Amino acid sequence: MPERIVVIGGNAAGMTAASRAKRLDPTLEITVLEASPFISYSICGLPYYLYGLVERHEELISFTPEELLSRRGIRSRLRVRAEELRPAKRTVLCVDLESGREFELEYDRAVICTGYLPRAAGIEGDQLDNVLTVSRLEDGLHIRHRVETQKLRRVAVIGGGYIGLMMTHGLRTLGLEVLLLERRSHVFRQVEPVLAEIIQEELRCQGVRLVLDCPIRRLQGEHGVLKGVEVEGQMEEVDLALLDVGVRPNADLALASGIPCGVSGAIQVDERGQTAVAGIYAAGNCAETRHLVSGKPIYSTLGTTAARQGRVVGENLAGRRSRFPGTLETSVEKVFDLCVARTGLTLSQAHRSGFQAATVFITHRDRAGYYPGSRELHVVLVFEKESGRLLGGQMVGGDSAGKRIDTLVAALTAGLSLQDLARLDLAYAPPFGTLWDPLQVAAHVGLRQVES
Amino acid sequence: MPERIVVIGGNAAGMTAASRAKRLDPTLEITVLEASPFISYSICGLPYYLYGLVERHEELISFTPEELLSRRGIRSRLRVRAEELRPAKRTVLCVDLESGREFELEYDRAVICTGYLPRAAGIEGDQLDNVLTVSRLEDGLHIRHRVETQKLRRVAVIGGGYIGLMMTHGLRTLGLEVLLLERRSHVFRQVEPVLAEIIQEELRCQGVRLVLDCPIRRLQGEHGVLKGVEVEGQMEEVDLALLDVGVRPNADLALASGIPCGVSGAIQVDERGQTAVAGIYAAGNCAETRHLVSGKPIYSTLGTTAARQGRVVGENLAGRRSRFPGTLETSVEKVFDLCVARTGLTLSQAHRSGFQAATVFITHRDRAGYYPGSRELHVVLVFEKESGRLLGGQMVGGDSAGKRIDTLVAALTAGLSLQDLARLDLAYAPPFGTLWDPLQVAAHVGLRQVES
Repeated sequence: MPERIVVIGGNAAGMTAASRAKRLDPTLEITVLEASPFISYSICGLPYYLYGLVERHEELISFTPEELLSRRGIRSRLRVRAEELRPAKRTVLCVDLESGREFELEYDRAVICTGYLPRAAGIEGDQLDNVLTVSRLEDGLHIRHRVETQKLRRVAVIGGGYIGLMMTHGLRTLGLEVLLLERRSHVFRQVEPVLAEIIQEELRCQGVRLVLDCPIRRLQGEHGVLKGVEVEGQMEEVDLALLDVGVRPNADLALASGIPCGVSGAIQVDERGQTAVAGIYAAGNCAETRHLVSGKPIYSTLGTTAARQGRVVGENLAGRRSRFPGTLETSVEKVFDLCVARTGLTLSQAHRSGFQAATVFITHRDRAGYYPGSRELHVVLVFEKESGRLLGGQMVGGDSAGKRIDTLVAALTAGLSLQDLARLDLAYAPPFGTLWDPLQVAAHVGLRQVES
Repeated sequence: MPERIVVIGGNAAGMTAASRAKRLDPTLEITVLEASPFISYSICGLPYYLYGLVERHEELISFTPEELLSRRGIRSRLRVRAEELRPAKRTVLCVDLESGREFELEYDRAVICTGYLPRAAGIEGDQLDNVLTVSRLEDGLHIRHRVETQKLRRVAVIGGGYIGLMMTHGLRTLGLEVLLLERRSHVFRQVEPVLAEIIQEELRCQGVRLVLDCPIRRLQGEHGVLKGVEVEGQMEEVDLALLDVGVRPNADLALASGIPCGVSGAIQVDERGQTAVAGIYAAGNCAETRHLVSGKPIYSTLGTTAARQGRVVGENLAGRRSRFPGTLETSVEKVFDLCVARTGLTLSQAHRSGFQAATVFITHRDRAGYYPGSRELHVVLVFEKESGRLLGGQMVGGDSAGKRIDTLVAALTAGLSLQDLARLDLAYAPPFGTLWDPLQVAAHVGLRQVES
């Protein structure tokens, strides 16, 4: 009898695990359970769908269930939620969300890929109509539908993290008035304040009304419908509010099944993706991971981390001995005309991880000054004061930042120092760069702090 | 009395050495001698000047002699050629190329940065008028002047290396008919044939008449003026011929001064840039270097290598103990709408260096398929068969290739393997990349050869 694998969750981690396992061992009988009506979609593509750069939401979907079956031999069941894994019997208790009917499914090995959930906002009024979070494709469809049918004029985005910035970009590009309300002194704390200020300048230039140091505790409604939000003592009327006040690992299934979570609150797994319960793996934004620089267990919400964990679990399901070394939390995001890229530890993360760290910040051209289209690239490097060892890096600038960051990813992974970075034989031609690459210029400047 | 430094040659290596030394030790009295009428210019910018994307040649010049003196405190003398260094007396015998007058200059330490020379073509007729090589800014001015005043219609570019491709791009963009004649079976042997074929396809699409396997031994002239070139048995009339049949290190001064060259024919230097003669350094495209992967001495003609060697010599002049570890011969070039980037060893270079090497070739999207502007990126990785250790890599595609190659530069420098590359936490967002980066896809495919 073929071995039966149940994969719970059909996005980055789950789809990658299922596909990789099936590819390496076609005898596996794999079923993917997904609570939502969609599998295998790109949540990162939502802002572009929102403002119509991507016209149809179907373009964001890599595989329909039919394609998944015909092209990869993997079955999937949508609108099915797994309630509990019963390792003693090797069954999973499910509920069909259409009919409400419960049923049990047998498995030999299972993979939990239940992703994340928007964190309970703790904001009074967060249950009002027109107050939404964005964590799934349906949320995007829902928002676009409202935008198209309700003649929205003014939107409040509460929280300036990844999702808040993504949504601000999407909604403002649609021509809506956007109030971006951030409780901290800077947006996007994945980069240093000096870079956050450049992002903030761009937001303002694009006509976003940005209010910092602005915690929101209450949304005002009438008859269950959102009416406004209090900003700096004034009630601002808005037609829609999007909440980006954080996410948490969706570990409910694990907890219901007696599978322990780690210090980060996400499901504890070893390097092979194995939970504390034999035969049950976890991967993606419900599972814990390790930071490659600090070595500490962390919770990552990135799709890239999810896919990489999923791949490792898929290989282990197929009998290989794969391990996931950890994440640098590398990310890149388009914020209007800016590309914001980062990897490794920020300065405050480095301090919290026990490093004696420092930063260097430079601004340099991204290609020869005389070459048309040349623009500024802002670079921060985070490094260990004594040794010059790289701990992290961030860039804000034109499109090239989106892949320039990968140079730092390789450097961080290999444990290179500022001195090593300064010596790299990086590429140069006038349309693509400068004789001394901005990363090297940053390393040269940073080295003054190391050497003195 | 201040220490007197003579730097012979005022471009990438010489200017960098002089500037770095003066910055670290302002007491040094530095004089730069330059045989041509220009210092401190970007030879890589020539094609863009040729077709007017860069309007004035002055834009390609970083420093005039006046600016060099006022802003950096470095003196320079143009149109002065150094004929011989006399280490016993610590003088350099010079000739003023304007007056023909010889004179001796005293120095305490000297740096030879005489760059490269176009190789003697060995082509009958290479002395005809309208037969040119391109190695200096003057050559570019000369060509543009001819283009503007002579109503050129048809140009033959002989040799499809860096310079040949650069010139083909520049002249074709001007609307001229270009015959590109390459003696080998593929253009640009710094990349594998599979990528050269993509470049060749682009050349043909852009209306270049490309003829491969076409060695040129004779140019036909009349009254000392070029008339035509024989191509596949037919005489083709052309108004101008540009020769790119190789370059050689300009080691004439070193040889005249008893300073030995290495196996590559370039001036032998140690890691600090010191020649075999005390007090005399060499850097740039006249000096030998070491390949970072093979460890072997090589001759590099890249401006980046020159600048890096110059920087190291500048630091050593100022009393630091800097060393230049070597080069990966990283380069990037724009060939019409293609970006061609490479680093490390090609397969044949790897074989010649004694590696048991293999390659993998893949084609992947450079950003999310649904994101506008997404296009194909072609990637080759060269690796050691048994260990999977990376030896080199090449890319052809859109602009992003120009800095994506730097990920491989860091990986190669750190000695990473395909397995390491596959695991890198590279950046992803739909406008900038794909969930699995093309480099990772290549690594995944390549690993099948390593594992089997």
